[in-house]
Amino acid sequence: MTTFKLKVLGCGSALPTMRHHPSSQVLNINEKLFLLDCGEGTQLQMRKYHIKFQKIEHVFISHLHGDHFFGLIGFVSTLHLLGRTKDLHVYGDARLENIIHTQLKASDTFLRYQVIFHPLTPKKSEVLFEDENLVIKSFPLNHRINTWGFVFREKVKLRNIKRDFLLEYDVPIDVIMDIKAGADFIDENGKLHPNHKITKTPRSPRSFAYVSDTSYYEPVIEHIKDVHLLYHEATFEASRENDARNKFHATTKQAATIAKAANAQKLLIGHYSARYVDTDFLLEEAKEVFPNTLSANEGLDIDLR
Amino acid sequence: MTTFKLKVLGCGSALPTMRHHPSSQVLNINEKLFLLDCGEGTQLQMRKYHIKFQKIEHVFISHLHGDHFFGLIGFVSTLHLLGRTKDLHVYGDARLENIIHTQLKASDTFLRYQVIFHPLTPKKSEVLFEDENLVIKSFPLNHRINTWGFVFREKVKLRNIKRDFLLEYDVPIDVIMDIKAGADFIDENGKLHPNHKITKTPRSPRSFAYVSDTSYYEPVIEHIKDVHLLYHEATFEASRENDARNKFHATTKQAATIAKAANAQKLLIGHYSARYVDTDFLLEEAKEVFPNTLSANEGLDIDLR
Repeated sequence: MTTFKLKVLGCGSALPTMRHHPSSQVLNINEKLFLLDCGEGTQLQMRKYHIKFQKIEHVFISHLHGDHFFGLIGFVSTLHLLGRTKDLHVYGDARLENIIHTQLKASDTFLRYQVIFHPLTPKKSEVLFEDENLVIKSFPLNHRINTWGFVFREKVKLRNIKRDFLLEYDVPIDVIMDIKAGADFIDENGKLHPNHKITKTPRSPRSFAYVSDTSYYEPVIEHIKDVHLLYHEATFEASRENDARNKFHATTKQAATIAKAANAQKLLIGHYSARYVDTDFLLEEAKEVFPNTLSANEGLDIDLR
Repeated sequence: MTTFKLKVLGCGSALPTMRHHPSSQVLNINEKLFLLDCGEGTQLQMRKYHIKFQKIEHVFISHLHGDHFFGLIGFVSTLHLLGRTKDLHVYGDARLENIIHTQLKASDTFLRYQVIFHPLTPKKSEVLFEDENLVIKSFPLNHRINTWGFVFREKVKLRNIKRDFLLEYDVPIDVIMDIKAGADFIDENGKLHPNHKITKTPRSPRSFAYVSDTSYYEPVIEHIKDVHLLYHEATFEASRENDARNKFHATTKQAATIAKAANAQKLLIGHYSARYVDTDFLLEEAKEVFPNTLSANEGLDIDLR
């Protein structure tokens, strides 16, 4: 079974504390690493958790509040110092490119690799990346400034033909493709082989959605329908709905309500306000609405293998 | 006795390691805090070592290599979130202002306090700050890009008149000032009171010089003459003089040679290359040339009280 694993590097919010690092997560899909947000100190967290810097080819920055991107310039610089030559793709607010370039220029740094910026369109959902296995889309959140969520979905796989069947029959390639797509097979003696007898069900495609800073915002639901794992921020406890609304953040129960409405399998909450020394009760609150909830913590792994 | 204390927050070099944080030090002079360089994660180090953020009014950035300033934007933002209203003075390369403003603008942040940028003049020594007790100057170093060192010198204090003497004689204010400056006193009976009998010697003024990234560069000596504590980078071991020259850094022995030539009382070395897991031998090398050498480490305090 191939890897599909999320690692939390930081799950605090804007004010620095000794308990949490600012936002950052790494998604490992078949040993391709995707970095989600990059708060100050992310590269040190990557060192701590033995994340291989050079395996990251795609970075997604949800918005330009510092706790989500101040670590990007350090990461970009370190890749250079480590001798990278491979491209790095960065998806985020259009102004990010200037922010990074201004700083590289000031230190007379000419990168030996290319950072390719992909500006996100405000208030729109777009396909950001697609290959044979995976599609990654952005979708708008509701925060003080332009902010995007990201959803990663593996593609539906064709059925795997059983080895014994292939050895026994000499099947032409076009028929093989039909069988992989679900067709039955009739052999030279006219015998019907139902598809489910000659194929195995492929692994079901896995999916992850990253809903970073946002108020309670129902329009996200359509974008994250049926995901296996949903990260949704939960900055505040349930009773602080007013604070949440005013600051364009969500409460535990709001995060859980979105997870339920989206029919997610699992919910991960984080981005805890610095006021919370103990976050156990935040988890309990979310679980009242959505029982299959986990609480983010630095170093947490969630394996969807 | 008033405080004069240096705290090391980070003493690694450009490549992040789990052993060291990037450059940052805090100098406490009578509970005024001065921040010297501000690599990524400095604000977390300040939290760790209980440095009071709001007590910092002056920040000195030696140059625009990332390991010396990538933490500044995070620190500036956090002061804002903490409700600061007091000015913050930042001394550094002229381009720093644009770097900070570009990032604040991108997040629609309008600071409730003022950051006052003081651009340093390339290749020149200047007085950056002066009050009744202290003078702070910059001086040029020799690195790949414009880089400055900083020297903090307390002013020579007037002598303290003994309390008993003041109680016994009714001395007019102008005579008091003369005595404080070193004059003897002749009382109404014509009796001579030698200055050293009626005054106490004030504490001797203390001084600290911060020589961040530089190759071996003798012109710094005149600026740091007789300092009580000299921080001088020592990125490389003594045998790597060629590496040091090519990378515009110094070796242990070069740092020690500068300390000796400047007649410093104490030397602190740091900015260790990421190649060194154990830095004990670097300290030993420096001590061969300048015995009163200390090795920087995160959390180290040097008290010149």
